[in-house]
Amino acid sequence: MAPGLWVTFEGGDGVGKTTQAALLQQWLEQSGRAVVRTREPGGSEVGQLIRDIVLHHRGDIAPRAEALLYAADRAHHVQTVVRPALARGDVVIQDRYLDSSVAYQGAGRVLDAAEVRGLSLWAAEGALPDVTVLLDLEPRAARARLDAADKPFDRLEAEKEDFHRRVREAFLALAAAEPARFFVVDASRSAEDLAQAIRSRVAERL
Amino acid sequence: MAPGLWVTFEGGDGVGKTTQAALLQQWLEQSGRAVVRTREPGGSEVGQLIRDIVLHHRGDIAPRAEALLYAADRAHHVQTVVRPALARGDVVIQDRYLDSSVAYQGAGRVLDAAEVRGLSLWAAEGALPDVTVLLDLEPRAARARLDAADKPFDRLEAEKEDFHRRVREAFLALAAAEPARFFVVDASRSAEDLAQAIRSRVAERL
Repeated sequence: MAPGLWVTFEGGDGVGKTTQAALLQQWLEQSGRAVVRTREPGGSEVGQLIRDIVLHHRGDIAPRAEALLYAADRAHHVQTVVRPALARGDVVIQDRYLDSSVAYQGAGRVLDAAEVRGLSLWAAEGALPDVTVLLDLEPRAARARLDAADKPFDRLEAEKEDFHRRVREAFLALAAAEPARFFVVDASRSAEDLAQAIRSRVAERL
Repeated sequence: MAPGLWVTFEGGDGVGKTTQAALLQQWLEQSGRAVVRTREPGGSEVGQLIRDIVLHHRGDIAPRAEALLYAADRAHHVQTVVRPALARGDVVIQDRYLDSSVAYQGAGRVLDAAEVRGLSLWAAEGALPDVTVLLDLEPRAARARLDAADKPFDRLEAEKEDFHRRVREAFLALAAAEPARFFVVDASRSAEDLAQAIRSRVAERL
């Protein structure tokens, strides 16, 4: 999917994905690169409507329906936002991608992680990022950050701590399985430290 | 999925699915059966939100996203509406199910029909109706009925005639592949004639 570069940020809520994505964008733009900053779910107009259903619907959504909604958002987003940007030569900086679906849905222990991954890959016609930054943080530390920020919790954030521990383990397992794509960083380090490490990794690929 | 009975109505727009579903419901209720009348997409609260996106969103939806949205609606609908009704022993009368997804998406020649079917079956955990009534009608005759009714066309209805011919062929091929489930009727016959034939077929299965 050259000539652009596709960087995704992964990790639980509260690990600092938004901060690091913003710092990376700033640095790239200062060095003259065109950047598209986006996210899943909700990185397109259709995706916003889907995101509203998944994150804010009152009442349960059947697990397979939830996985399919994320995949639908992904299919539309990759085709209408990511691929055109990469074709233009832009850098795409994206908050969450299929690794989040696999880690969250898999950690929920309702759906088979391999099936969820297969669904996402079908949705995206096999598209995978060039670099996936995994911000790894112990769930209690992430929780403390969210509490400090006094951010309202959405449906997923309100799930239990044990679930978040399984999500973290799932992310680490995904990173171990694809070391060439993943860049795992200890998110308890300072924001500037992390930004420097991420810049170095991205610079290698530019 | 006993002890209930699950009947789906399939066919293009304008073939009379709503009329026949209503007549079947009336007859079953008069004979004392509990009936759940439903549809896809949009047969649940979450499904209504999804239906709004699929049928009324202005602007294109990526083909895979569209297929995934239909599948998400299906997953939620089967789990929260169809299975509970069948478990209670009710008769479920449903306007459109996975055969519509396969026929419409397949006829669009963008996605592989077998993949669309696989997606639907994953969504529904393999659930298939006991009886699928296919109301078969030449697309021009269906078009004339819709024109006469002066119904507003939604996004799918506005597609071209050639497409509708492929949809019809796709439905007939699906019926030929599963003769035990499908009941194909010539929808140019009178509504009362059709209702009688459908009642006979359903009565065999009750």
